[in-house]
Amino acid sequence: MTIAMRKSILILCILLFSAEGFSQKVNEQDSLVIRNLFDMALLNGKSYDWLDDLSNQIGGRLSGSLEAEKAVQYTKEELDKLGLDKVWLQPVMVPKWTRGIPEYAYIETAPGITSIQDVCALGGSVPTPDGGLKAEVIEVQGIDDLKEYGRERIAGKIVFFNRPMRADLIHTFEAYGGCVDQRYSGAMEAAKYGAVGVVVRSMNLRLDDLPHTGSMTYGDTPIRQRIPACAISTNGAEYLSSALKLKPDLKFYFKQNCRVFPDVQSHNVIGEITGSVYPNKYILVGGHLDSWDLGDGSHDDGAGCVQSMEVLRLFKEINYRPRHTIRVVLFMNEENGLRGARKYAESAKLKQEEHVFALESDAGGFTPRGFSFDTDEANFTQIKSWEPLFKPYLIHYFEKGGSGADVGPLKDGKTVLAGLRPDSQRYFDHHHAANDTFDAVNKRELELGGAAMASLVYLFDKYGTKSNLKQLKN
Amino acid sequence: MTIAMRKSILILCILLFSAEGFSQKVNEQDSLVIRNLFDMALLNGKSYDWLDDLSNQIGGRLSGSLEAEKAVQYTKEELDKLGLDKVWLQPVMVPKWTRGIPEYAYIETAPGITSIQDVCALGGSVPTPDGGLKAEVIEVQGIDDLKEYGRERIAGKIVFFNRPMRADLIHTFEAYGGCVDQRYSGAMEAAKYGAVGVVVRSMNLRLDDLPHTGSMTYGDTPIRQRIPACAISTNGAEYLSSALKLKPDLKFYFKQNCRVFPDVQSHNVIGEITGSVYPNKYILVGGHLDSWDLGDGSHDDGAGCVQSMEVLRLFKEINYRPRHTIRVVLFMNEENGLRGARKYAESAKLKQEEHVFALESDAGGFTPRGFSFDTDEANFTQIKSWEPLFKPYLIHYFEKGGSGADVGPLKDGKTVLAGLRPDSQRYFDHHHAANDTFDAVNKRELELGGAAMASLVYLFDKYGTKSNLKQLKN
Repeated sequence: MTIAMRKSILILCILLFSAEGFSQKVNEQDSLVIRNLFDMALLNGKSYDWLDDLSNQIGGRLSGSLEAEKAVQYTKEELDKLGLDKVWLQPVMVPKWTRGIPEYAYIETAPGITSIQDVCALGGSVPTPDGGLKAEVIEVQGIDDLKEYGRERIAGKIVFFNRPMRADLIHTFEAYGGCVDQRYSGAMEAAKYGAVGVVVRSMNLRLDDLPHTGSMTYGDTPIRQRIPACAISTNGAEYLSSALKLKPDLKFYFKQNCRVFPDVQSHNVIGEITGSVYPNKYILVGGHLDSWDLGDGSHDDGAGCVQSMEVLRLFKEINYRPRHTIRVVLFMNEENGLRGARKYAESAKLKQEEHVFALESDAGGFTPRGFSFDTDEANFTQIKSWEPLFKPYLIHYFEKGGSGADVGPLKDGKTVLAGLRPDSQRYFDHHHAANDTFDAVNKRELELGGAAMASLVYLFDKYGTKSNLKQLKN
Repeated sequence: MTIAMRKSILILCILLFSAEGFSQKVNEQDSLVIRNLFDMALLNGKSYDWLDDLSNQIGGRLSGSLEAEKAVQYTKEELDKLGLDKVWLQPVMVPKWTRGIPEYAYIETAPGITSIQDVCALGGSVPTPDGGLKAEVIEVQGIDDLKEYGRERIAGKIVFFNRPMRADLIHTFEAYGGCVDQRYSGAMEAAKYGAVGVVVRSMNLRLDDLPHTGSMTYGDTPIRQRIPACAISTNGAEYLSSALKLKPDLKFYFKQNCRVFPDVQSHNVIGEITGSVYPNKYILVGGHLDSWDLGDGSHDDGAGCVQSMEVLRLFKEINYRPRHTIRVVLFMNEENGLRGARKYAESAKLKQEEHVFALESDAGGFTPRGFSFDTDEANFTQIKSWEPLFKPYLIHYFEKGGSGADVGPLKDGKTVLAGLRPDSQRYFDHHHAANDTFDAVNKRELELGGAAMASLVYLFDKYGTKSNLKQLKN
């Protein structure tokens, strides 16, 4: 146990035993409200039905696609039905990239001796030439290897980034964070050494046949120097790596005809219940409405959208009239641009909308384990004192850490930012792949997330943050 | 917060802050060993591969079946390969019940107007007559309703037990416990009022088309008065209930030709690493090798078996030489008889084998959330002091409660009994149904369970229980 941990526990003990009267009052009333929210979600929750529509009636919602626009219309209509005080669309220009016809790839160990591989273009990649791209392969364990190998060994080849996600990390998002630079910057970096293409091992902890897409950047690489990049399934990556050991001069072929179009207009979908005491102070819950195109985006991030909508629905259901304005925001274009989040934050700044608390759900619809908070020690101490209220629901994890990509631009040192933390073990089995589909979501797990979010929002609404606590007590 | 909870926290604080030197020593050495166990399981665990064989090469392992015997042979062979000090089979006579040809059922609202339903015979049920059984239906919400309705309304009818599992309970096993009397005793009780058959709503929190089997009893009902019992899918139960509201005199037909054979000999599979200090004191880890026949028994309880085997494998891998004898027991016939568990406990008693700690995994192969302990306050206080060692793995749930059916017969007031507690939200989607299959198990979740079990066994081996703590310190 670190000293910091002991300190936290000591502080918790002091809170629990010295302010007993306060603590009991908090517990009894609050635990009833929270029980009510969980009962409502588990017995009559709407998240699952909404997700069914979003996933099975609409499907994958890549920014700029028809499906993304259908999702905007659908969620606005559903928010309209909830009897909120205000529902509107916030226009935002988003990139439009299309995958085109299905990608095709193979390993050629000798002329005519090929084995077909499962690949997909990375989001934002340029296409290969019409006839595809075939070249020798150099396998690397990461971007650092490029410098070591140098232009001499890399030029004219396809660079194969094959550093796997670390299986020993309990938090799978950490393992993702430790690997995703290969996908995001691999092509940009490899092009500097004369590579002609890039193949990246899918960001997946499991061995299977599904390629996982995701965003990439070319930075300021001139258009003519941009090289195509694809992801290969983890089984494919293992196979390619073995084959290279036996035959280092084998060739890899892939063909993709993805394409970038001019930006198009889309929208963030926003709804709110006006605060009874602080109508001009905001508590935000949100997820992102866009998704990748291979699956239907159920976990990433249909789940977060419907859970966020559910927070407001639950408040209406239990007749809770919040003190702050509670706003749901379904952000557009998290996956390949973050334009919706930036637009929202800019607009909020322009209008001087004070955001007290912003909570994002963008880590899948699995059993909620807790929340991660991006805030200072004073606020975190208060948050930790709420933990026992979540214990009956087995939501024990309240830790400092990141929040979410879409609430990130709201960071100003005062707003408490947070992210729902569902169980993460299965998440990267589905993330950005064709099996991110509705059948991989369990109704109870999904609804528990909405209830947990509503409970936390309720507590922030009632007790405020440390920066505005004094004024709430008046 | 209850007074009991505050007390527990206070005790924890005292432990953490007063015995600092001790606590730090515990933490540093132990946390390294535990990290090592988790790394080994996550990077090179064997649970998943074993389960693949058990599920996909052997399949459902109903007591008395050929598959059950294959599983005995397979697991013994695998234990033999681990280089344990002893591996053997413990003979036990088990019941043999077979399902026969697939069941068939329909609702008849008018002559010739039928709708086919998904049903399965309950384990141990008698067959229907060869031509099937057709009768009017009386829907009840539980066994208590039978008395109220009385023989007059029940005689000659099929009783339809339709009380659903409570969706508002977070611990789904509690919801199961609150419902399963309908399945277990429904037929025995309904027969007393002249019912001719029983249909039970499947023990499933989800609405789907899969019937869930499970054990039932006729008690001492004379053979000729025993009535057949089947489970209907939750969708079917909803449909039947609605149809009964529209047409109370509809008829239900079902046909099943299950059969009981004389008992046959089977085995518990046992392996052990002999203790270096206390060879005659035992720490047991186990699961049950038999399963129902509809799926392949991956979650119930192939998972528990391979995790238990993995505990011993991990100890060999990290070269840990235990002080106590660590024994893995794969119990036969948990599902419909508990004969293996009873046999093991009887034999242990006869041989005066002192069991210090017995840990069962029989709640699915999902992400481990913690353990439930059946023990006294003194032992539980020590156990709670270990909780911080499991926190890095997000295994926070250490509570008093039940342990497991197979370790239950070892209960003697001294042995600490415990059960692994995986996340339970999805468990009853699969429990005893055709979709309890390998593809519903995630490798990481499964391997985490084995590592968590090994870590707990390590701590009990090192620190002993309160009843033998004094002597360990000598």
